[in-house]
Amino acid sequence: MQLTNILKNTTSLVTNTLGKTGEQTNQTRTTSRPRVVVIGSGFGGLNVVRGLAKSEVEVVLLDRNNYHGFWPLLYQVATAELVPDSIAFPVREFVKSYHNTIFHMAVVTDIDLANKRVSIREGQPISYDYLVLAAGSTNNYFGNKVIAQNTFSLKDVEQAVEIRQGILKAFEKAALEPDAEKRQTLLTFLVVGSGPTGVELSGALAELIPPLLQKFYSGLAGEKARIILVEAHTTLLESFPGPLQQKAQQHLEKMGVEILKNHEVTGVENGEVTFKQGPKIQAGTVVWAAGVRASTLAEKLGVKLAHGERVPVESTLNLKEHPEVYVIGDMSYLEGFKGGKKPYPGVAQVAIQMGQQAAKNILAQIEGKTQEDFHYIDKGQLSTIGRRDAVAEVFNLQLSGFVAWLVWGAVHIFYLLGARNRLLVMLGWAYNYATFNLGIRIVGGWPHQKAAK
Amino acid sequence: MQLTNILKNTTSLVTNTLGKTGEQTNQTRTTSRPRVVVIGSGFGGLNVVRGLAKSEVEVVLLDRNNYHGFWPLLYQVATAELVPDSIAFPVREFVKSYHNTIFHMAVVTDIDLANKRVSIREGQPISYDYLVLAAGSTNNYFGNKVIAQNTFSLKDVEQAVEIRQGILKAFEKAALEPDAEKRQTLLTFLVVGSGPTGVELSGALAELIPPLLQKFYSGLAGEKARIILVEAHTTLLESFPGPLQQKAQQHLEKMGVEILKNHEVTGVENGEVTFKQGPKIQAGTVVWAAGVRASTLAEKLGVKLAHGERVPVESTLNLKEHPEVYVIGDMSYLEGFKGGKKPYPGVAQVAIQMGQQAAKNILAQIEGKTQEDFHYIDKGQLSTIGRRDAVAEVFNLQLSGFVAWLVWGAVHIFYLLGARNRLLVMLGWAYNYATFNLGIRIVGGWPHQKAAK
Repeated sequence: MQLTNILKNTTSLVTNTLGKTGEQTNQTRTTSRPRVVVIGSGFGGLNVVRGLAKSEVEVVLLDRNNYHGFWPLLYQVATAELVPDSIAFPVREFVKSYHNTIFHMAVVTDIDLANKRVSIREGQPISYDYLVLAAGSTNNYFGNKVIAQNTFSLKDVEQAVEIRQGILKAFEKAALEPDAEKRQTLLTFLVVGSGPTGVELSGALAELIPPLLQKFYSGLAGEKARIILVEAHTTLLESFPGPLQQKAQQHLEKMGVEILKNHEVTGVENGEVTFKQGPKIQAGTVVWAAGVRASTLAEKLGVKLAHGERVPVESTLNLKEHPEVYVIGDMSYLEGFKGGKKPYPGVAQVAIQMGQQAAKNILAQIEGKTQEDFHYIDKGQLSTIGRRDAVAEVFNLQLSGFVAWLVWGAVHIFYLLGARNRLLVMLGWAYNYATFNLGIRIVGGWPHQKAAK
Repeated sequence: MQLTNILKNTTSLVTNTLGKTGEQTNQTRTTSRPRVVVIGSGFGGLNVVRGLAKSEVEVVLLDRNNYHGFWPLLYQVATAELVPDSIAFPVREFVKSYHNTIFHMAVVTDIDLANKRVSIREGQPISYDYLVLAAGSTNNYFGNKVIAQNTFSLKDVEQAVEIRQGILKAFEKAALEPDAEKRQTLLTFLVVGSGPTGVELSGALAELIPPLLQKFYSGLAGEKARIILVEAHTTLLESFPGPLQQKAQQHLEKMGVEILKNHEVTGVENGEVTFKQGPKIQAGTVVWAAGVRASTLAEKLGVKLAHGERVPVESTLNLKEHPEVYVIGDMSYLEGFKGGKKPYPGVAQVAIQMGQQAAKNILAQIEGKTQEDFHYIDKGQLSTIGRRDAVAEVFNLQLSGFVAWLVWGAVHIFYLLGARNRLLVMLGWAYNYATFNLGIRIVGGWPHQKAAK
């Protein structure tokens, strides 16, 4: 799939376009064509738009942000390897080639299934004939609000920048802290959850933090930063094959990451992390990467939600009671992964393929044809461990080390939208390679007091 | 002056360094050398550090941010021509080569002249033998808090990013606004103040906004964005020679900027700008670039402040009553510009040269020698108007158009710290040239609601 080619394709058969007849009027119908409202401009949503491009439908795409975030590289923004702009692609630039599609930056506040309408915070309700929910996932704190308040998370660009600033401020505070114990707390970074996000982030922190301290904080020369990865279960990278799980753990430990398995976090407060098992740990910076749940929009559908608050869908990806409503990607719950009873995981490839299938099935419905079941083509899974290290399961091959990292790099640049973003990512990486952390690439400061006068 | 060469020079004679003996202990003396505390890591402060590099003093540099901001290019961050990181250079990377200097990211809250101590919010007070105030300027709203609240300003990276987001949100709101008049208000951008900042910003907006609307907001195709530059006095670019003032005005008008001279803003509220003279204007986005005042730290010195709340200094740049205290750059008030009674303006060149002189005079004081008066070498002034246009007064030459723009570009890249930042700036410019605004380079979204569960 070549997402960027889409940008150059002007293959739409629809020439008399919605966009040209007035974006403001999207609340009222301007054509007799069926309207598909797509919520979310992630991998799922964009592939619905793409799949409907050549069809006689009008598409309204909505997202809270004006950009498609390339989340697989988000941890590199948090660790200052990439500038935030390089993983964000403006949605209006994407939809420009789709003459049957308009976009609005809007927050969906409600879904009226009976009247087929979605409410948005920024304007009038928008009616639909078909609705696709592709709003992704958010953090799951399993009901613990204190943990939610006292931890960083890594679900969007803003949060990644907050982590970046948090690291910087921990260093600067430590440099002014006379008490040795408090200094050690400030220099302890703890990541909860060892899925790809947790593994990638803790690996990147292990590469970022010690050289930064050594080079630029001579007053902290005697101090040792701790990077701790905590997992509630018995293995890292639960979805990966056993040998790759072990490789990942060995490599992380070699890089200086302390790994605590079978440790369930029960609380994070005042720089102290408590566990169900074992003694507490003082850590000034805690990142929560332990679980996700579907966007809260799932609750607006009035159906019983499945594990992770995901919406159970038919094998054709729509709701049983409302076949005009599709739920795809991280928001949907559908069993059948690897041919078994496991649900499809919340990864980009599932969202992409579900988006493609949802578009096909909407067109089938419009044309009165039979819808197809979702069939997943498993292209494997990847996780980096360090700057030149990764584990990968692709086409039944298990790779690790530098070769896996090359595969990982190629795949991610391939899927990244836009020539400018690819260029920025590649330059960022080349620069990091050349300098290997010689620069502090985090900028920030203490909060500003507004001048009164 | 080649600021970047400094980074490679390890010419300090001081080998037993403060940094190595413990940064945390900077509050208590570790050596018998005189300590110079420098507040502010702008052009002034960094040049004090540089001037003291080879001397038997210890230097403590303090700033609220961890970066040196290259403010002359800040408007290009606001108009999304450059990524924020490209104009911010980490101070710790700068001070690394200065073995007698340590840096702390800290907010100075008070100055105790009697006991020669500065208080910081993030730690213990720091004593000094010599103090240099180089904390720059902040916006001057002339006491009007409502204007302060309802306008954007352009004094640091955060504010530049806010303007960028403000432009984006104005577009997105307009695309959802059914009322034509409200749409026009949202699409009206007003800049108050026609110094270099106001001229550069309004020119860049005139180049950014119309093509963005045309390319990506087809629903707003019938709308015309207005960019208005408002000046209380009779001319643009007050400090420039008359012919260049006229050129700047002609060029801006040709680009579609509406210019209102002799218009003093009295209020900005609910998208409405009122003036002392003439009818009010509906404008959704207002940027305040009308005046600056010295950092509020000036008030801590207990001396009568001059115009713009600046601190009157002796011709040797220190205080009469406290010769160990220097005030330089935007914070200081010293007459003598162009040989007359005018004070030296708040520009980078003045700050740089004052920083150099302050360092020399501190060393003279230590050695019991006579201090020198500040003598300014006027290297001219520059202001861009558009992407290929500028006005420049250099070495008694008056330049305008593309040649002036080339001079402007060369000077700014020359003074920009760090190879990576130069590379980012040059790539950003090259990309803009190649695509000429083909891309929306603003990313943003509506504020996030924290997931409760």
